[in-house]
Amino acid sequence: MAMQHTPLLMSRLIDRGATVSPDTEVVTATADGTRRQTMRETRDRAHQLAHALKDAGVQVGDRVGTFMWNGARHLEAYHATAGMGAVLHTLNIRLSAADLAYIIGHAEDQIIIADADTLPLLNQLAGKVPSVTKVVVADEDETGQWKCEVADAVDYEAFIAGKPTRFDWPELDENAPLGLCYTSGTTGNPKGVEYEHRSQYLHTMTVCMTDAMGLSATDTVCGIVPMFHAMGWGVPWAALMLGCKQVMPHRHMQPERLARLMADEGVTLSAGVPTIWQGVRAVVEASPDQYDLSRLSRLTCGGSAPPPSLIRWFHDALGAEMIQGWGMTETSPLATISRRLMKHSHPGLSLDEQLDNVAKAGQLMPGLELDIFDEDFNRLPHDGETVGEVLVRGPWICSEYYKNPQPDRFHEDWLITGDVGKIDPEEYLIIADRSKDLVKSGGEWISSVDLENHIVALPGIAGACVVAQPHPKWDERPVALVILEPGAEVDQPSILDHCATAFAKWQLPDEVLYVDEIPLTSTGKMDKKIVRADLEKRGYRLPDLR
Amino acid sequence: MAMQHTPLLMSRLIDRGATVSPDTEVVTATADGTRRQTMRETRDRAHQLAHALKDAGVQVGDRVGTFMWNGARHLEAYHATAGMGAVLHTLNIRLSAADLAYIIGHAEDQIIIADADTLPLLNQLAGKVPSVTKVVVADEDETGQWKCEVADAVDYEAFIAGKPTRFDWPELDENAPLGLCYTSGTTGNPKGVEYEHRSQYLHTMTVCMTDAMGLSATDTVCGIVPMFHAMGWGVPWAALMLGCKQVMPHRHMQPERLARLMADEGVTLSAGVPTIWQGVRAVVEASPDQYDLSRLSRLTCGGSAPPPSLIRWFHDALGAEMIQGWGMTETSPLATISRRLMKHSHPGLSLDEQLDNVAKAGQLMPGLELDIFDEDFNRLPHDGETVGEVLVRGPWICSEYYKNPQPDRFHEDWLITGDVGKIDPEEYLIIADRSKDLVKSGGEWISSVDLENHIVALPGIAGACVVAQPHPKWDERPVALVILEPGAEVDQPSILDHCATAFAKWQLPDEVLYVDEIPLTSTGKMDKKIVRADLEKRGYRLPDLR
Repeated sequence: MAMQHTPLLMSRLIDRGATVSPDTEVVTATADGTRRQTMRETRDRAHQLAHALKDAGVQVGDRVGTFMWNGARHLEAYHATAGMGAVLHTLNIRLSAADLAYIIGHAEDQIIIADADTLPLLNQLAGKVPSVTKVVVADEDETGQWKCEVADAVDYEAFIAGKPTRFDWPELDENAPLGLCYTSGTTGNPKGVEYEHRSQYLHTMTVCMTDAMGLSATDTVCGIVPMFHAMGWGVPWAALMLGCKQVMPHRHMQPERLARLMADEGVTLSAGVPTIWQGVRAVVEASPDQYDLSRLSRLTCGGSAPPPSLIRWFHDALGAEMIQGWGMTETSPLATISRRLMKHSHPGLSLDEQLDNVAKAGQLMPGLELDIFDEDFNRLPHDGETVGEVLVRGPWICSEYYKNPQPDRFHEDWLITGDVGKIDPEEYLIIADRSKDLVKSGGEWISSVDLENHIVALPGIAGACVVAQPHPKWDERPVALVILEPGAEVDQPSILDHCATAFAKWQLPDEVLYVDEIPLTSTGKMDKKIVRADLEKRGYRLPDLR
Repeated sequence: MAMQHTPLLMSRLIDRGATVSPDTEVVTATADGTRRQTMRETRDRAHQLAHALKDAGVQVGDRVGTFMWNGARHLEAYHATAGMGAVLHTLNIRLSAADLAYIIGHAEDQIIIADADTLPLLNQLAGKVPSVTKVVVADEDETGQWKCEVADAVDYEAFIAGKPTRFDWPELDENAPLGLCYTSGTTGNPKGVEYEHRSQYLHTMTVCMTDAMGLSATDTVCGIVPMFHAMGWGVPWAALMLGCKQVMPHRHMQPERLARLMADEGVTLSAGVPTIWQGVRAVVEASPDQYDLSRLSRLTCGGSAPPPSLIRWFHDALGAEMIQGWGMTETSPLATISRRLMKHSHPGLSLDEQLDNVAKAGQLMPGLELDIFDEDFNRLPHDGETVGEVLVRGPWICSEYYKNPQPDRFHEDWLITGDVGKIDPEEYLIIADRSKDLVKSGGEWISSVDLENHIVALPGIAGACVVAQPHPKWDERPVALVILEPGAEVDQPSILDHCATAFAKWQLPDEVLYVDEIPLTSTGKMDKKIVRADLEKRGYRLPDLR
């Protein structure tokens, strides 16, 4: 041994921010303002929480659930469990009671830390989660009026009160489990992805690279993506390590509140799904003088691709760079990223070309391998045309699901992502679609994502969702569901004409259906499974089949 | 296993730049201009070199020496050896023949790749390096006139000609050796530090963090620090990974050439020791209109601390940020770094305060641990006053020397760095001195580094070196050797009065000696061992002992 083989444990990173920047703030939005604490207090409270969990019986490797919004106590739970070697199981508060009961039982969560306002949801699980012996209730509104029916409950503050503010983090194997996050699959039960210390450690370093999110200690970070989604995209860990100011919206996710919070707190970097940014755009456009977002420099956008028109608007109106990230729960999640300037040649491109690049899923993060394959797992050319299954492997990619290996989701050591895409000669990954959402028409594929992005760029269109419908001759044909902006009138011929400027005739939707809303999944993406089921329930038939 | 345990091999990083930015240039300075090749060519040639080395008998784990300036072929040697699993032994071309013969024998180098213009030095080893079976000669000047007397020699281009441009990099253990670099110790034989794949992989990721060097693919990087010093501070690896444009000065290290090269190639980030930047400053000050360095944004400075006046000058005159890094061969080397803005509170500081911070060794890189200790290895307070031995540990810190463990250089798993320093309440490490260079006077310590920095800030002073001289009463007393700028006159009382503005009377040098030059070590630092030996040889005695 020539160099030290120090295990890559998150406990080596998470206390650093409080050490170098003890007075930097962690701000949580409340019903009527904010609750503020310092990094030093956050660290002290996290160490107290670790003591309290240990005293309550939680040992290394035991699962601790959280049922929480983004807030300082959720951050403390991240910090405490990572340090002490427990496994943080972030529960998605938008899941159905049946899924939650399954997940909690499958993970054998012992303790759940829950926000008081989420208890009505959690209480639906009464009698169905026998592994849970205690619920720790974070009473953000300080009402003292909460009621928990799932298990013995204790107030979070009472739980940690008087505990020592230093916990000697144990030495663990670097491949020890760190976190658990279940994916809301389209078939079968949710599947758990178990993050390990080493994998998240490497992911955290990567997130902080200049050409990734470019996180700096000088940033004021607002993670809007829920901390129950794929470790909040790694933002909480990175911010704890660097000592960024953190701004957390809790349940106050209305676009007005988000824009206000970001303006008031001087947020420089935020992270969330496109629908969040559509909402923020709408309120800022409606009242441009109300929100001073001049300090906002970067918006990381993931979950689904941001429409090019949205990328452009944030650039033109706010001078903010939208960064597209692509990944999934199974990839920790950051796999590719796209920034306006991320190659040596990029400053020489036109602004349009730079922003066009941001609309692609992006460049692969160093250390990962990614390629597109045909159905026999032959690699396909990087010509920007050929579409194939996207497979990825590397040190923060899932190798099997928790207590449910699912070997058909892997090819050798590659994760089969379930996305189909192409890779262009510049090595950009371009996601065509979820493989299950592609429209297969006459032996050719039509990308629902491309059609949606194109339609939503048309003035007056607030949202678009393209799904396949069965057709006896063509196999499938696309149909577009469209939400109009209030007061707007955009008829079907206008939309189809607009599509015809970029798509072949056979790729155009067979019909435009006007709707008031599009159902979303628990992760904020358009739920095309529900859309297709609704159409079937209504007895929808394509125009030429009526 | 829940996540993939992909080994952290450099072969997973080094091909990336050529993949994403194949046309980006690698530029090498030549006698009368530059030699240019693309990243794609560099990668192809590196793979060819790996084949050639393998065909010449180099196997996984075998040592390949380089005796080279910074240039594209040296970069290819980095790339080839890392990929194929050989160990790159970077030989310091400024070492004595005796030290070189010892090092090459100790490392059992089989093949040495040498720049043709260094052969006169290498030829002094004829008959003394029996392990070397072949010398590969990089004839940068294309004279064809070189002569090698050490072993069978072959021209570099002939060596790689016709080899395949793809080498399937082997799978290795992530702790397999990657590189070997000997430190020029002050006593005994040089000691080898053996870098491993995992340690350099983690170091590479860290170098690219926003709050470290902030390296980006958009940078044009000029590593002036020799690639035979601690892996060129990690810059070659990072640039290969990201696809930066690289500009390499080869032997053309005169300040005028460096300034010209940086201006002509649009260098954005450079890295070198303070004496380099003093030289660049002098030529730019003399002819400010000659060098357009407007694109230069960051200068990483290490090896020894840059004087505050130099940090200030680059900020004021060029708008360039000097970044101080601290580390040593044993720390891969980056251990701490100091940037103008690297904490959330820093934008609120005055410019003077920001630049004062850059004069400190800096903030610890995430993942490392560092502290100051007394002689019984008790931790000392971080009060900015207490001085102690600096110890460091972590995943890219040396754990023992190559085939020469030196347990007295370690305390438990901590490396004893040989530097003494303090840590202030902001967690900045401030190096007081090399422990062997501290002046111990009357039971108190005087920092030679602090005195030097103060003296060199005085107009008319080009350099200063403070060393201890023996004294029967006080044990040791400081003496200052000073180089004046051409034509300047600064007498001893002026210098001592200037020192008295910042130091106590008992800390002032007992005498100022005017010299024309100060001897440097092979790593470009002032060689105080030689300075002290020269004074002794001259029979120097302190004024009050004459």
